[in-house]
Amino acid sequence: MPLPHPQTVVDASSACEELPSAGPFTTEERNAVYRAIESRRDVRDEFLASPIDAAVLKRLLAAAHAAPSVGLSQPWSFILVREAETKRRVADIFRRRNAEAAAMFEGERARDYRLLKLEGIEKAPLNICVVCDRTRGGPVVLGRTHQRDVDIYSAVCAVQNFWLAARAEGVGVGWVSIFEPDDLRPVFDLPEHVMVVAYLCVGHVDRLHDRPELEARRWAARLPLGEVVSDERWGAGSSLFER
Amino acid sequence: MPLPHPQTVVDASSACEELPSAGPFTTEERNAVYRAIESRRDVRDEFLASPIDAAVLKRLLAAAHAAPSVGLSQPWSFILVREAETKRRVADIFRRRNAEAAAMFEGERARDYRLLKLEGIEKAPLNICVVCDRTRGGPVVLGRTHQRDVDIYSAVCAVQNFWLAARAEGVGVGWVSIFEPDDLRPVFDLPEHVMVVAYLCVGHVDRLHDRPELEARRWAARLPLGEVVSDERWGAGSSLFER
Repeated sequence: MPLPHPQTVVDASSACEELPSAGPFTTEERNAVYRAIESRRDVRDEFLASPIDAAVLKRLLAAAHAAPSVGLSQPWSFILVREAETKRRVADIFRRRNAEAAAMFEGERARDYRLLKLEGIEKAPLNICVVCDRTRGGPVVLGRTHQRDVDIYSAVCAVQNFWLAARAEGVGVGWVSIFEPDDLRPVFDLPEHVMVVAYLCVGHVDRLHDRPELEARRWAARLPLGEVVSDERWGAGSSLFER
Repeated sequence: MPLPHPQTVVDASSACEELPSAGPFTTEERNAVYRAIESRRDVRDEFLASPIDAAVLKRLLAAAHAAPSVGLSQPWSFILVREAETKRRVADIFRRRNAEAAAMFEGERARDYRLLKLEGIEKAPLNICVVCDRTRGGPVVLGRTHQRDVDIYSAVCAVQNFWLAARAEGVGVGWVSIFEPDDLRPVFDLPEHVMVVAYLCVGHVDRLHDRPELEARRWAARLPLGEVVSDERWGAGSSLFER
């Protein structure tokens, strides 16, 4: 599905279009954005059975579709999965791959891994298979000339938009990555040029963990922000976070 | 930087932790989240010279650091670039790669491509090189056992969090992807296991395009939402968008 190539490009120096003013949000608006970012969780078990209203789902999909995309190629597509038989097939694939995954850990970590619930495929009323059409935008895409995978990055931005909007709507999202992307190809009749980027479990929630579940369950710890920021060079540390 | 492996994992069935209630936001809060998502732009030319306050920048970086990450591996790092000489080196790399990119288009598209301004590297007061440490989280990362690149996807989610928070703060962000990731390796002393994911131009803005700049300049058109959604299978169309 190449994009139409419309008329003539408007020169960057042209004044033919207005640039509306766009300063900071009000404090209340800004706090709401941060609230979504900070309270978003990867949900595995808290899904309610109630279906998602069509109007809400359209808003969430529109939020995803408003993501940045390389060369405005919009390479994402969203396959909405509600059929029990399809979810069961995906859950079976997950279980087989998750057994392989568990075997990659050793000792206590292997035992601990098996205690974790890592998906809500059948519990969530809606699953979404987010795919990237690697031909969208035509054979040469602006901004993708030197990094072949930035179309996939665009689809990931769409996932994150969806996730944050969902938090604001009281809808939980869990991202399942424990299978090979090609495992899902026959399930969704995906042609060669279409690649699975994310498999999402989606449903209303009325309770959420107040910190990342893997932290709450002591699987891993959050890093201090100062450890992932540096000035000018890799590993230099940052004067923003003086210790 | 492997994560610490803390004590014993808490069983998923354990009631040892509270799950605070977490329903939908108020209408005003929800609208603020959608406003950030819908009015976010990829900024190339509207940057003001004023520096970003340290408190604002810390909030933006904390938003990025709150992104979902596979196995809570938090594989991202943010290199803050303010030195003019470093920006000049990056801009030189961009110009060389952009000339190559322009040559990949044909006829009118090639001419049009050259009219587009595609970066604000030297105009933006701050640049951020967002990298992914592919060893973070240790040799086996939960959720990355069957998809090697999901650590990169985590770093992309961090970029999108940063971008949306920046919109709420009146800060513009532009993602430059027109170089090979390895072009930047010597500029930032990146070791082999650290990969460039995104190069961001960051600065305050007081005006923004009201639609994607590539649409406003007639390079590409936005797709109707219904064309990127389908039910159950690839290409099936969706009853959500009956035509």
